[in-house]
Amino acid sequence: MNYRMVFNTIGKVLRIESILLLLPTVVAMIYTEWWQAFALFITACIAFVLGMGMVFLCKPKNRFVYAKEGLVTVALAWLAVSLVGALPFVISGEIPNYIDALFETVSGFTTTGASILTDVESMSKGMLFWRSFTHWIGGMGVLVFFLAFSGKSDDRSIHILRAEMPGPIVDKVTPKARDTAIILYVIYMALTLVLLIMLLFGGMDLFESAIHAFGTAGTGGFGVKADGIASYSPYIQWVIAVFMMLFGVNFNLYYLLILGKIGSFFKSRELWVYLGIIFTATVAIGFNVFALYGNIADTVRISFFQVSSLMTSTGFATADFAQWSAMARTVLLMLMFVGACAGSTGGGFKVSRLMILIKKTVNDLKKVLHPRTSTVVKMEGKRLDEETLNGASSYLTVYVIIFLVVFLLLSLDTGVASDLAVETNLSATLACLNNIGPGLGAIGPMSSYAAYSPLSKILLSITMLLGRLEIYPLLLTLTPMTWLKK
Amino acid sequence: MNYRMVFNTIGKVLRIESILLLLPTVVAMIYTEWWQAFALFITACIAFVLGMGMVFLCKPKNRFVYAKEGLVTVALAWLAVSLVGALPFVISGEIPNYIDALFETVSGFTTTGASILTDVESMSKGMLFWRSFTHWIGGMGVLVFFLAFSGKSDDRSIHILRAEMPGPIVDKVTPKARDTAIILYVIYMALTLVLLIMLLFGGMDLFESAIHAFGTAGTGGFGVKADGIASYSPYIQWVIAVFMMLFGVNFNLYYLLILGKIGSFFKSRELWVYLGIIFTATVAIGFNVFALYGNIADTVRISFFQVSSLMTSTGFATADFAQWSAMARTVLLMLMFVGACAGSTGGGFKVSRLMILIKKTVNDLKKVLHPRTSTVVKMEGKRLDEETLNGASSYLTVYVIIFLVVFLLLSLDTGVASDLAVETNLSATLACLNNIGPGLGAIGPMSSYAAYSPLSKILLSITMLLGRLEIYPLLLTLTPMTWLKK
Repeated sequence: MNYRMVFNTIGKVLRIESILLLLPTVVAMIYTEWWQAFALFITACIAFVLGMGMVFLCKPKNRFVYAKEGLVTVALAWLAVSLVGALPFVISGEIPNYIDALFETVSGFTTTGASILTDVESMSKGMLFWRSFTHWIGGMGVLVFFLAFSGKSDDRSIHILRAEMPGPIVDKVTPKARDTAIILYVIYMALTLVLLIMLLFGGMDLFESAIHAFGTAGTGGFGVKADGIASYSPYIQWVIAVFMMLFGVNFNLYYLLILGKIGSFFKSRELWVYLGIIFTATVAIGFNVFALYGNIADTVRISFFQVSSLMTSTGFATADFAQWSAMARTVLLMLMFVGACAGSTGGGFKVSRLMILIKKTVNDLKKVLHPRTSTVVKMEGKRLDEETLNGASSYLTVYVIIFLVVFLLLSLDTGVASDLAVETNLSATLACLNNIGPGLGAIGPMSSYAAYSPLSKILLSITMLLGRLEIYPLLLTLTPMTWLKK
Repeated sequence: MNYRMVFNTIGKVLRIESILLLLPTVVAMIYTEWWQAFALFITACIAFVLGMGMVFLCKPKNRFVYAKEGLVTVALAWLAVSLVGALPFVISGEIPNYIDALFETVSGFTTTGASILTDVESMSKGMLFWRSFTHWIGGMGVLVFFLAFSGKSDDRSIHILRAEMPGPIVDKVTPKARDTAIILYVIYMALTLVLLIMLLFGGMDLFESAIHAFGTAGTGGFGVKADGIASYSPYIQWVIAVFMMLFGVNFNLYYLLILGKIGSFFKSRELWVYLGIIFTATVAIGFNVFALYGNIADTVRISFFQVSSLMTSTGFATADFAQWSAMARTVLLMLMFVGACAGSTGGGFKVSRLMILIKKTVNDLKKVLHPRTSTVVKMEGKRLDEETLNGASSYLTVYVIIFLVVFLLLSLDTGVASDLAVETNLSATLACLNNIGPGLGAIGPMSSYAAYSPLSKILLSITMLLGRLEIYPLLLTLTPMTWLKK
């Protein structure tokens, strides 16, 4: 393990975090929240000192890095930015308990949007801004940001990009990892800006527009109101619903659009399956909840909004879907599991990974029928090799194991009323592992995770990080065999 | 597809069913239930005529069979015996609706033990006997029985044995499939007999002893009382609890015992993991429900009974565990998922398959760390080849897909109260796919599946068959590509 290289990179990431913290500091100052501005600024200083310290103390003797270093770097960098990022909440006194603050920050960076706040409307503007800004930073990736805007591209870049970008196959749109990172961030910023302008156009003020643009772009879900998005105008709800869906699309496809390859854009099977699921689920839920809302316009808007929100793992809500019918709740649980497209800011299991698994299963069935015939599995016109096929199964396996372990450990918590506990714990596990945010039962969109014990909050924070980094980086970092010499 | 061979074998299986139906006929006559005896006898005649018809009309031109024929034969044979086996319930008028009767019969043969009966104590002895006898027949396998007691061993035998015996690896204890089938059935009968004697010794009458011996041996779970096993003496409860555990052990191990290889018996890792899970779960649940029962003897007996019952997928109950704490219910859900050992009469995912998946995951993690190092995965001292490893992942994948589809379709049913529906449907899917029987929520051990609609009952019947045959045989039979010429 090239420790120096790992900690050197983490130091540089912390240095970036210190710069990013200046934005909410300025926001707090604009709203004359001096104490909050101080908390944010002090944290920026701590991040800077820590970062510089690590960079100087850990000057790498050599720059050799393997997959292992890439994975460990990503996992520890995410841990580091979360541990530091929680400080402003504690220093400002708005979330006095550090574990609660850490839960909130991890939930922010991982774009989960699960909250322990029971009264979000009493928070200061500065803290709300930082909370939502973490969504935006975490959406495209802390290290992708680092790759894009600092230093030169080298060996380790691709390992880091692979470890941080979600999905079963990481396509580099350009040969150089750094160029890919820049392109991704430019598209991300442009889309966020368009969204911001459209929200302003709908009469939302600049502060709330920024908050909701961050929450939508990162598919995070933190808002500023107790009832989520419910009290905003239908126009605002439509804009957010459509943009959530857009941020759940593979960003490589937007690059194709920029290059003018419109044909290639529409040839993507994952895109069509993704849109198809959203359409089908909207129709199914629409019929199911029509009686609750009484007219078609409201029904379509509310159904589409919730489908788009949960499928992309954003977690915004315009209705308390925890009260919907069993069928609607089950469809939402399924969407939470499936998740968005690979290479998007959305979480979940990913549409393309599910497609690979279904194709693999059909292929397995064929093999049972004709054991001696060789078969080819194709996706997006390309042949999928054995490694990718088995990789998707392996991921499902480790995903199921983690899911069961977290669900079991969570059941030790007695904070949730017993009759709701199984549904609540199950959906909490799913909502955190897939970075969605709200769940069903006692953690529905109009409730919070406050009832869980500190130990459960730590467990769920780890779960959110496992989900965001697609399990392997963090799981390996927590495994002794990664650290032992062979 | 060698249709003649497939239907010829199914005909022979139906002929065996007609002979097996004579036993409950005699029981009904002993209790002077003439109408029930008539219903059973008429069904025996129908099975005989159908069976003979198929045997004579489908004389195979050649005896070539491949894996495909084996799978289809098993799936269709199970369907055939279930369709015919449901008739006595309808003819006798005790379950007038054929779909209900079919659900009950499939539940019997697949050793699920899920019931649509709302008043089991009003049933006649003859019908109760047939209902429980189906557990015993289905436990070791309809076709394994056929292999053991009719005709000679040939090519197709091993395909059939593979398709019907649960678990990731089918060990033949002897080179010939037929000898293996005989040995398995002899052990099965001997163990059932010992259990029967021990139940008689506890003061249970012969009829109820037989019913509970069948239910325990097949890990089925049909009983004769509304409160399950709760009103029997602690001695009876202990006997049944221990024997459920024994029938969940791989029968190959008992053969090793008979051969005097006691060392090899205790070397089985699967056995130790199985016993370890039972012990851990009993202790965990014991601590959790101690307050409900107040003394150690009752707590241990009730916890061990429920753990043994759900882990082996039997489904007997001495307490209404649907009312237990969230933690206890979650542990029970986990046990339901894991299931018993491969090569036992128990259902579920199987301990050894889970062990393979965990070993495979550790191996996958190693590969991520050291991509160029080749690794070996061992189990029970033997090297596991790539086919077995990927086979276990593939099985998990198709299992998860089936699970999600059934869960989603079940949510369309509005028969269950909305607030309980997600937990109920989830546990119904698990309970049927893993052949357990009772679930949580509205289908707890003291309730029934009566509230589900006819369509849901058909869906759950298919699910039970998928579970008992470990998905592939029935899934392939339902797939057009199996029937189309290449």
